[in-house]
Amino acid sequence: MMGDILRDSDGVILKNPNIASMKEDVLYHISLSSGTHDLKEMFGDIRFVCMGGTPKRMEGFAHFIQKELNIKLPTGTVLEDISRHSYRYSMFKIGPVLSISHGMGIPSVSIMLHEVIKLIYHAQCKDVTFIRIGTCGGIGLPGGSLVITEEAVDGLMHPYLELHVLGKMVQRPAILDSEVAKEIKSLANEKFPHYKTVLGRTMCTYDFYEGKFY
Amino acid sequence: MMGDILRDSDGVILKNPNIASMKEDVLYHISLSSGTHDLKEMFGDIRFVCMGGTPKRMEGFAHFIQKELNIKLPTGTVLEDISRHSYRYSMFKIGPVLSISHGMGIPSVSIMLHEVIKLIYHAQCKDVTFIRIGTCGGIGLPGGSLVITEEAVDGLMHPYLELHVLGKMVQRPAILDSEVAKEIKSLANEKFPHYKTVLGRTMCTYDFYEGKFY
Repeated sequence: MMGDILRDSDGVILKNPNIASMKEDVLYHISLSSGTHDLKEMFGDIRFVCMGGTPKRMEGFAHFIQKELNIKLPTGTVLEDISRHSYRYSMFKIGPVLSISHGMGIPSVSIMLHEVIKLIYHAQCKDVTFIRIGTCGGIGLPGGSLVITEEAVDGLMHPYLELHVLGKMVQRPAILDSEVAKEIKSLANEKFPHYKTVLGRTMCTYDFYEGKFY
Repeated sequence: MMGDILRDSDGVILKNPNIASMKEDVLYHISLSSGTHDLKEMFGDIRFVCMGGTPKRMEGFAHFIQKELNIKLPTGTVLEDISRHSYRYSMFKIGPVLSISHGMGIPSVSIMLHEVIKLIYHAQCKDVTFIRIGTCGGIGLPGGSLVITEEAVDGLMHPYLELHVLGKMVQRPAILDSEVAKEIKSLANEKFPHYKTVLGRTMCTYDFYEGKFY
């Protein structure tokens, strides 16, 4: 769904031709706007967008990244939820990483991605990697295994997402970047040798329960 | 989807026969459990479950209901988000009304309803009405109209929800209680004569954007 756009080294290419000519693009659900914020100045250095279910978890993840990357904040400052006024998603920025909650289910993830991809476009970020992190059920693997998604499938095991667009059913391929998956697998083997780490398929159970994709 | 079950005057009838014999039913996403909470004592008087998108809006709605029903809280007490430890939904109780956020999209609504319907079952509430309140786009009506849903349709205008269950596509009819709709319309005409109020169809745009149903 994302790989082909999001690892483009020239930056994000939007399929909507109207965005470029809009005077203001209001990113309502993440409480930002191209008219009221200097998105390039604020977010131009973003290289990774990390997404997960709850605000609490993604706040914790931002602090984890802060430690991992050894980032020191100016004295007297703390991380703040950038999207707090939206009352919908929580978004934290720590160095080159955005840590964003996406709620539950593919519609909720879609609304967030729709705006975050435009944010990355307006901010003119280059070579950004999007990663979803979360828990899920599994078949044929011991609990606690780390699965890095090679292919995302829906509840009927199809590797695409079906949507209603203008009264018609359309399919959007769930294409993931296999290079990113291999890179993460290699890093995980090195850094977490005590976890079982596999490349596998993940189900987008979007109909009912949490949408799971990476 | 709900009408036939939820207005049953004998209380909620669950289709899952295992719930009755379970030692503990953990309602994980609303941070309650039949094992750790006396759900009947806490929620037995609920008659209305009101649902909307954001935690902030549903907190405001609880305060609105408090004023409308002229409910006085004990000195030194305030309403508290019952589900705050779930970091997923916000739930407020004011008298006979539960005011709950459902996030965005049908999957998110489904997870909440799945647990709230079981909550109503465990609490042995009788004759409970579920109402979703929210904004939506409209066709053929002036902005600001109040639409009371007679029939909910999906993005292809079908009056049902399609789900993947155990590898098969199944359809769940989106049946609403027409008596409730008429009752709300009659009350709205009386109380808000300055609003345009109509009975109409509402779209469950569950594929992508906010799920809208009542």
